[in-house]
Amino acid sequence: MINFKHWQTLYINVNLATMTDGSKSYGEITQAALAISDGKIAWLGKESDLPNALLAKDSNSSSQGSVDIIDGKGQWLTPGLIDCHTHLVYGGNRANEFEMRLQGKSYQEIANAGGGIVSTVAATRKASEQELLASALPRLTALHQQGVTTVEIKSGYGLDTVNEIKMLKVAGLLAAELPVTIKRTFLGAHALPTEYKDNADGYLDVVCNEMLPQIVKENLADAVDVFCEGIGFTLEQTKRVFDAAQAHNLPIKVHAEQLSNLGASELAANYDALSSDHIEFLDEAGIIAMKQAGMTAVLLPGAFYFLRETQLPPIDLLRKHQVPMAIATDANPGTSPIHNIHLMLNMACTLFRLTPSEALAGITCYGAKALGLAESKGQLAIGYDADIALWNIAQPAELCYQFGVNPLAALYQAGKRVI
Amino acid sequence: MINFKHWQTLYINVNLATMTDGSKSYGEITQAALAISDGKIAWLGKESDLPNALLAKDSNSSSQGSVDIIDGKGQWLTPGLIDCHTHLVYGGNRANEFEMRLQGKSYQEIANAGGGIVSTVAATRKASEQELLASALPRLTALHQQGVTTVEIKSGYGLDTVNEIKMLKVAGLLAAELPVTIKRTFLGAHALPTEYKDNADGYLDVVCNEMLPQIVKENLADAVDVFCEGIGFTLEQTKRVFDAAQAHNLPIKVHAEQLSNLGASELAANYDALSSDHIEFLDEAGIIAMKQAGMTAVLLPGAFYFLRETQLPPIDLLRKHQVPMAIATDANPGTSPIHNIHLMLNMACTLFRLTPSEALAGITCYGAKALGLAESKGQLAIGYDADIALWNIAQPAELCYQFGVNPLAALYQAGKRVI
Ligand SMILES: [Zn+2]
Ligand SMILES: [Zn+2]
Repeated sequence: MINFKHWQTLYINVNLATMTDGSKSYGEITQAALAISDGKIAWLGKESDLPNALLAKDSNSSSQGSVDIIDGKGQWLTPGLIDCHTHLVYGGNRANEFEMRLQGKSYQEIANAGGGIVSTVAATRKASEQELLASALPRLTALHQQGVTTVEIKSGYGLDTVNEIKMLKVAGLLAAELPVTIKRTFLGAHALPTEYKDNADGYLDVVCNEMLPQIVKENLADAVDVFCEGIGFTLEQTKRVFDAAQAHNLPIKVHAEQLSNLGASELAANYDALSSDHIEFLDEAGIIAMKQAGMTAVLLPGAFYFLRETQLPPIDLLRKHQVPMAIATDANPGTSPIHNIHLMLNMACTLFRLTPSEALAGITCYGAKALGLAESKGQLAIGYDADIALWNIAQPAELCYQFGVNPLAALYQAGKRVI
Repeated sequence: MINFKHWQTLYINVNLATMTDGSKSYGEITQAALAISDGKIAWLGKESDLPNALLAKDSNSSSQGSVDIIDGKGQWLTPGLIDCHTHLVYGGNRANEFEMRLQGKSYQEIANAGGGIVSTVAATRKASEQELLASALPRLTALHQQGVTTVEIKSGYGLDTVNEIKMLKVAGLLAAELPVTIKRTFLGAHALPTEYKDNADGYLDVVCNEMLPQIVKENLADAVDVFCEGIGFTLEQTKRVFDAAQAHNLPIKVHAEQLSNLGASELAANYDALSSDHIEFLDEAGIIAMKQAGMTAVLLPGAFYFLRETQLPPIDLLRKHQVPMAIATDANPGTSPIHNIHLMLNMACTLFRLTPSEALAGITCYGAKALGLAESKGQLAIGYDADIALWNIAQPAELCYQFGVNPLAALYQAGKRVI
């Protein structure tokens, strides 16, 4: 017996891509219905399983309660989309550097003109909270209009205590501007600031002993991340930050195995990390470690594309060991100045050869898992947050196959219609 | 002495990317002004060169005439964008085939399931004019909202007289739906319809002797195109269609050298063709022939990306011989289901290593040239059509560098504000 007395919204005549964890084929339910109550998904299933009393046109209003019944016209509902890896708060942009490189200017000329992450750090430090907010807002708005209801945002362009905190505060302020759930990640160990040149350990003292305690105290971060790479931090240095995060009970994420295999994913697995991200050069040992730790592999096709990388992430091995694959924009000014999650669906299929069902799982159920939200977001399931997107498509694969026309027809966050 | 009596709109405090033919650096004019009169660009130059009487706040209204003065706030004006190669009128889509391929299904399984161009031909033949119009409209709307004011649309999925004509009529109807100039290209020689299997010459009899005369009679096409390729038509067959087009005084375009070098570009040069499109496998002899014939090379990075091609078009040789390079979406259901010209800018730079100025020229002045419109569109120049886009950017390279946030702030077609 279905109790529909408290339902507020009921979609009928829709198809559902439930994206139930581990499902193939989108966890699809055709000719379905879905009910929302108090911001959660209250019921879903075949429309034919709805109580007759609810849909009968001649039923009295008390039996229907006050439920708002919406005809989905045969369109598709999916979970609201999740972009689980972005750096979308930053100052300035790197169009100048992009242009100089294409004009054949040398690395030194570009560096002399102030290119590279140094320029983003300088612009981010210089910008006020309001300026950072104003520049980040169109980027988040673009994602929101594509059907994104949850976004992770990292710090990492401040690289000193006051500016790392400023970035995380701005990320928090964005949640008041748009109906998007924001998860914040502290990435103080993103790069070495010029004032600590040749003194990475000195900088990490500040990251671990000054920034992190302050950020924890002000409750500004949901996770801690490190860029472990030849051009980033060593494995040993990464371990220092992981230890500090663990001491503060913050979950761990890692930028790992993007340009070489340093073993950062395996290290992160020892800390029961949420995810290892990029991982083009990850080997099978690392994949097994990730699987055993219940980690998610976050694939970033935008950076792969923008950097014209040729080393593909080990998709078949991830499949073999059933490591969940998330997909994200990696939106950032240096290596993925792309604020479009639909393009990531297409690139995950076109460049990484994921199936459309795998790609969509990457920005729904597994995006949620990469953020520690597997129990509340990223699936159409009873009790889950009613973050839901309605798409004007005939089959889910269209979301991955075509690009340019935005098929979003409606968007709900926590049960409230926001688009 | 500048005569501003008849100006209707005047932008002040703007920067101009005039894209004057052959220019490097966008033909930029900073701290500029631009005037519109009777749908044309009436004047442009440094704002400081405007007559004092025009801007003086205390001048009487008669000296100002009725000109509407708009503060561009330091943003950038470019020509309205031109997508000079699309197939955006078609029935159905190929999401199913896309998904089957990624699921590892064999070519035969996909063909058995009705995949390939055959499926698009079947769906296009089946669709009514109204259905084709309804499905094409969101695609054209997407381009329009990106700042596109001129689009070329090819036939080629009808492959019989009635359906080729239907496609061209629908392309014409689109011009009544949106403020976009449509140029139509007859591409009857796109593929061999199944009813003419093993009888290409029989089909070309219909193309040349039945379709083309009828299309010319009804004035349905601005140009004629052929897909010359191992999987398309031979050089000899292509020549037949070119001869027929020439007999009807229609300009020629060609799909050439995409998968192999058959010499179609050189053949087209003998006919003073407008453009040769794709051209990944074009050699220097072909490039020299194109240069001598005044042809434009149309680069299609979306198809290159979607097909995961590795053979880059001969950019350096095109530069060496100063063959103009246009860029287009190639929007089509099989090899480039992409309706976004901004993404083509980014891909032209990222994948083909064009400079941002070259890429922008590809969708403005050289896009116009590829359509025979070099004298009226694609540049900010006095007497040119006032198809103009205003962008919320600090420098033109931002249009190529970042992707996802649409910086279009205003759009004019023939002097009328349409966005
Ligand atoms: Zn990142
Ligand atoms: Zn084409």
